[in-house]
This record gives sequence, C-alpha cells and structure tokens, in this order.
Amino acid sequence: MSKDRAMLNAFDPASADGLDDRTRALIARRERLLAPSYRLFYERPLHVVRGEGVWLFDVDGRRYLDAYNNVVSVGHAHPAVVRAIADQAAVLNTHTRYLHESVLDTAEALLATMPDTPRQMLFTCTGSEANDAALRIARAATGGTGVIVTQLAYHGVTAAVSEISPSLAPTAPRPPHVRVVPAPDTFRIADVATALAADVGSAIADLLAHGIRPAALIVDTLFTSDGVFSDPAGFLAPAVDAIHAAGGLFIADEVQAGMGRSGSTMWGFQRHGVVPDLVTMGKPLGNGHPVAAVAGRPEVLLPFGAEARYFNTFGGNPVAMAAALATLRVMQDEGLQANAAAVGAHLRAGFRQLAAAHPVIADVRGDGLFLGVELDDGTPRRDLTAAVVNGMRERGVLISATGVHGNVLKLRPPLVLTREQANLLLSVADEALTAVGA
Amino acid sequence: MSKDRAMLNAFDPASADGLDDRTRALIARRERLLAPSYRLFYERPLHVVRGEGVWLFDVDGRRYLDAYNNVVSVGHAHPAVVRAIADQAAVLNTHTRYLHESVLDTAEALLATMPDTPRQMLFTCTGSEANDAALRIARAATGGTGVIVTQLAYHGVTAAVSEISPSLAPTAPRPPHVRVVPAPDTFRIADVATALAADVGSAIADLLAHGIRPAALIVDTLFTSDGVFSDPAGFLAPAVDAIHAAGGLFIADEVQAGMGRSGSTMWGFQRHGVVPDLVTMGKPLGNGHPVAAVAGRPEVLLPFGAEARYFNTFGGNPVAMAAALATLRVMQDEGLQANAAAVGAHLRAGFRQLAAAHPVIADVRGDGLFLGVELDDGTPRRDLTAAVVNGMRERGVLISATGVHGNVLKLRPPLVLTREQANLLLSVADEALTAVGA
Repeated sequence: MSKDRAMLNAFDPASADGLDDRTRALIARRERLLAPSYRLFYERPLHVVRGEGVWLFDVDGRRYLDAYNNVVSVGHAHPAVVRAIADQAAVLNTHTRYLHESVLDTAEALLATMPDTPRQMLFTCTGSEANDAALRIARAATGGTGVIVTQLAYHGVTAAVSEISPSLAPTAPRPPHVRVVPAPDTFRIADVATALAADVGSAIADLLAHGIRPAALIVDTLFTSDGVFSDPAGFLAPAVDAIHAAGGLFIADEVQAGMGRSGSTMWGFQRHGVVPDLVTMGKPLGNGHPVAAVAGRPEVLLPFGAEARYFNTFGGNPVAMAAALATLRVMQDEGLQANAAAVGAHLRAGFRQLAAAHPVIADVRGDGLFLGVELDDGTPRRDLTAAVVNGMRERGVLISATGVHGNVLKLRPPLVLTREQANLLLSVADEALTAVGA
Repeated sequence: MSKDRAMLNAFDPASADGLDDRTRALIARRERLLAPSYRLFYERPLHVVRGEGVWLFDVDGRRYLDAYNNVVSVGHAHPAVVRAIADQAAVLNTHTRYLHESVLDTAEALLATMPDTPRQMLFTCTGSEANDAALRIARAATGGTGVIVTQLAYHGVTAAVSEISPSLAPTAPRPPHVRVVPAPDTFRIADVATALAADVGSAIADLLAHGIRPAALIVDTLFTSDGVFSDPAGFLAPAVDAIHAAGGLFIADEVQAGMGRSGSTMWGFQRHGVVPDLVTMGKPLGNGHPVAAVAGRPEVLLPFGAEARYFNTFGGNPVAMAAALATLRVMQDEGLQANAAAVGAHLRAGFRQLAAAHPVIADVRGDGLFLGVELDDGTPRRDLTAAVVNGMRERGVLISATGVHGNVLKLRPPLVLTREQANLLLSVADEALTAVGA
C-alpha cells in the first residue's frame, strides 16, 4: 500500500520493519482481514486496551494522555454513560416505528440547548449519515443541487458526502454540483469575513452560470480540517447571508465543534451569530455509542418529509437515546462546556508562551478544547509538524495534524481535561519541539 | 401529513382520534419534536417498554409475540450480548486507527462463516452505509456507474442507496445510471431463473446503449421487499452470470436474509450457489447495536482502497465488535440457524394447512424464519392483508406486509422462536383471517 499523501499522521506500512513482533503481527492480521482502505495513526501505531477519563492505556500498561479524542467528550468509559447503555440494553432496544419516550426526551433535551427554536430532529447513527440526510433535505427544500464547501472540508464517507469532502482527495476533480471555496485562513487573510463571503458569492454565481441552483453552504463551524479557524467571532455571517440571498440553505456541521467542545458556546454556529437552517451533529453525542442527528427548522424539513419517508433502523433507538441523554446530562452536571472554555483558554495561553522558546509557533487558534497550533517560520513546516506529533506520541500525549499545508497541530482532548493535565500536555509539547530543534 | 401510499402498514395520523389519550399525547410530541419523515406502524401504534426473547411488552404490560424483528435475531435483550456490550463499554471504546484485537477477531469469525474465502472486511454502523460503501467499491473496481436492482428493492437511506431503492418511491423516476428489473415473482412467473437473467441482460444492454458501463447487480438474496422469493434454489445464478459477463459485480445484500435467518444456509446467496464479489450485512449483526459491514474479495476491494481511505468513526469499534462477536457466538452456541430452518419449515407447513380453511392463502414462501404468505383469490388482496396485519396486532402478534401488490404477509421473528410460539402465531393468524371473512 502506498503512503496516503492526503492523510496527515497516517502510519506507513512500508516502515513496519522497526516495530516489535506483536505490533507487526497485528498489522499483518489487519492486512489479511480488513479492507485496504483502513489506515492507522502514527509512525509507531498504538495498541490500546483500556481507557479512563482522558487516559488511554496500551497493551504494555503505558498510559497516554488522549488529546485527540472528539468522541468521548465526557471521558473514556464514563460510568454514567456505560450504566445508561447497559441498563437500557437489558430492558429494550427497538426502533422508532413503535412509540417510545426516549427518542422524544432526547430530542427535547438536545433542542433545548439550541437557540432559535422551534426545531425538529432526525436521528441517524453517524455524522456521515446526518450530513447525507441534510443534503437530501436541502435538495428537497430548495429544488437546487449545488453545494458549496471549504477547501479541505470533511463531511463524511457516504458517496454523497465524500463528494463534498475535498480533504479525502484534495486533488481529485469535484462533481459538477460542488464548488470549493478557499479556507477562511485567519493566519494568512486579513479580513476573512469579507473574503469568505466574496468566495461564496463567486461560487454561487458560477453554479448559476452553469444552470445549477444552489442548495446549500455547509461548513464545519470551527473549520477543523481546514486548519482550525475561529476568530474573529462572527466572520461566518456574511457568507451565510450570501447563501440565503441565493435561496440556498446554511448547514452547520457541528460534528466536530458542537456539544460544548467550542467552550464559549454550546454549538459552534453560535459564535458567529448565525441561524442555521439545518444543524448536523455526531461524534460526541453518545460518547462513543453510534448516535448522530439532524436538527432543522420544521418548514425546511417538511418538503423532504412529504416526498420521502426516512427510516434508520438503529437511529433513535432506546439504547442510542439512553447514551445520548446520559452524555448530555453529564456534560451539564459536570459543567464541561465551562471547563472546555477555561482549560482551552489556559492551553492556548500556554502555547503562546511556548512560542517565546519555539518561534516556529506562528499562531495559536481555536475555541474551547479544539485547538490549532500553526508551525510556520516563513514556510509552513509540515515536516516539523509530523515530527512533533510523533514525538509527543512517544512521550505519551496523543494529538494529530491538520490544515491545507499540513502544518497545524490539532488538539481536541476530552472535555474533562484538567488544568494539571493541560500543563502536562504543554510540557510534553515543549520537549517534543525542543527535540526536533524547533 | 398525508398517508404514505408507498409504505405498507404505516399509521395514518388522520385516524388518531380513536386512540387513547396517552397514545395521542405521544404522537403529538413526535409531531412537534421529530422530523415529518418519521412513520409509525399499525392502525393503532404500539407503545413498547420492554423486550425479552421473542416478546415485546407494551406500557400496559400486555405482551406481543414479535414476529417482525429482523434485528434482534438472538432475542430481545439477550443477556450474553447485553453483558458483552456493557463489559466492553466499561473498558474501552475507541476506533480502528489504533490497533485493537476485537475488530480482527470479529472479522475472522464472520469470514469463517462464508464460503469462497479469502475475503476482507470493512465495518460500518448501518446497512445503508454498507451498501453505500459497496457502491463506491464497485465503481472503483469496474470503472462503471450503472446499477441494476429489482422492482421494489430496498437497500437503504443514504442519497446514493435511496436512488437504488425503488420501494421508497415506486413511481418516482430513477436516475440515469439505475435500471429496475421486475421482481422474480415465483408466484406469477413460471421460470424466474430465465426471466430474471433475461431482464438483467436487457438492463445491461440498455445501460450500454446509453453509454453507461454496468458497475453492479445488487439484490436482497431473499427479495424481501419484492415479496419474499426463495425457490427454486439457484434461480439467481443465471442473472449473476449475466452481470459478470458484462464486467459488473454481483453484490449480495444480506442485511435481511443473512446471519442464519434463511435457515438452510448461513447467508442467502449460498442457496443460489453463487459467489458474490461483495457481501453486505447489517441489522442482526449486533442484535440491535449499530454494526454493519461489507465483505469482499481482496482484488475487488483494492482499487477503492488505493484511491480512497475510508474511516467510519464508530465502525468496527471495540464495543460494536463485542456486540457482533457475542451475537455470532450465541447464534452458533444455541444452534439458531438450525432452529430457523426447523421452526421456519413448521411455520410454512402450518400456513399451508391454514390455506384449506382460508383459500385466500395462495402461496407460502421463504426460507428459515423469513416467510411470505400471499393473499390472492384471483386478485391480490392488499385490503385483506392490511386487515390481517392489524388484526394479528390486536391479538398480540406483530407482523407486517410486503410485495409489489402489497398483499404478502411478511414474517421475520427472532431466530429463537420455538415451535410452541410458532403454533401461537398460526392460531392467531387463523383467527385474524376468520375475523376478516377470508
């Protein structure tokens, strides 16, 4: 298998020789049993066997601070979520074509966290399914097919959403109904609000010139695969106005930014003061149990509902809903959005302090516990970024990389991260940067 | 909301007046909180709160024999599966970019149930995702885009697979790359093997005439939404030969028929003596936990793997794999495929006996514990079918309907169904048929 140039931080099977026997044996089993589209992380893949809070433990009992987990937001194996899943699985797990209160209680609790109600919900199992359904809903609502996405956007792996995910294949041609606009690179562009709106406007004009009616602008509201772009708050608003003026919808993909991760707000779109027509959510919703959803304004959902039924066998089932409701309650009871805001600010301040000793740190971005740290000394340092990611892994802290230039450290620890654990992360980053001479 | 003509056995909200207050209140909450694309079963929807083995219990404590559940194949809330999920969730739930033995053990165990190895696996969360991925794999492997499906096929709800699911909208136009062939209606067509192969051949020719290269023929190997067509064994083989001769793949969609349900074989394709290029599976795989997968020959999977990585956040995670492995072990330890064969044969014999008193029973079909019972007295009796389905529900047995004419009783109980429970089902069917004067 050749090295996947499109994927940052992928293990290269060609360099398996230096690994221990047990690891090589597992990799060989994977190559025999799993499809070749699977990838592993890190130069030396990690064999994990246990998780607890922010910690992962490998097969030798070594612990790692998991600062790259946007799924288990309330911490690995949180007992309240585990109990909710176990208790409900022991009683009933069926589907939404029977009446059951859990799907209603969960929809109500999630919608209560959003401004601009009323909204209604559609539950799926994965963020990919949620974005795929959102596209179908947008097409039905607008009569259009055109979709505008950012440069390295990632919205999922179904056939339809992989077409709007340039990060999966940055150089491949896009289908005729897709337009890609430059990332709102706040490090390189002075006025991203104006630039992004202008680019979206050009994309709309180009779609129309080709006889394609715009259906939607969809963005990850923290632009995490583009490089993590967060400030200034509000920069997204003019672009949203542009798609609305063209009769298209704005879809806020909150799979990465939502559910409290972005600290200052529960959902990423709120920092920009915009009102999405559709909100998609996923990864952290069930703290690892497959739960995802679309929330939308009723009038936007209606045309799709009138033209098609949508039944997702496992979507919204009682166990999935128990997991989601328990996760939300833990978030609220433990004050994890506020913790994300406080510890995230502490981490960003810490990285800015590290920049004094490591001037390659050119920019520190993000909100809450989603951080981007750009390594650029006049040139984007993709090489150093990979070395730091792997150096931190060797020192027991798991992060990864992102961005158009592959030179942005990407951090997204569970929202239970403490200030002390953040300090450990910073000291390991310091060591890893020093070790690579940066 | 208008009545969904395409969906058999859907509750019609216009007839909510006759329901009790609690049920109406839940329906009103659903209409407020859930997207309008949701549907309920039965003239009087069921409010379930507990499941055990083949039984569902409603909020008033009344029990129902669940003869319409193709997800919890080893029975509702099977303790071994519940324990496997709870135990693994308490230890670790992460993803396939770290090494973990569970995904390998599960892939190995599932592949060992299939003939014609070697194969490799790709795990997803839902059957829709599995079929969606199979289409992407087929396009990459063949360079074609054309897909051939049967008349009322159902393959899922993503944008791509809803296009190849005529059952969702039988009268809507299909996209240019999709060809629909008549169902292999063994009740009305003398030689379905020849007819199906001829229809697939015509579809291939028509695709080619339009400049579209065939990528795949995909079928539910028991043709369950077409009306449940099972015999004669082997009738599918000439159609598979036809797609192979045209350079396309054969995709066996085993979401309904597979994992032992079809009794005489573990997988539905085996009864036809064909070798699928890709096998998709879903619903029963984790007994309700969201687990699904594609299994394929390595050379078929390779082009997709070379062109694209495919990462499904929850797909193949340790908890999903624990659920799948526990379900498979229960299937094997409790001999459920053999039970499906024996009790299924008993049920079919029972329905054939009922035909003496109820001559509207024109045909009894299926394999293992997937049955189709056609109600036709010279005319397909869609009306009677709906009345029997609802009459049985009122008498405590849950089934539904299927077929091009909407006149086929569709039964798919958990595979733990006993002979005694089958007799109860038959006596309730007898009563319901008598009550409607059939």
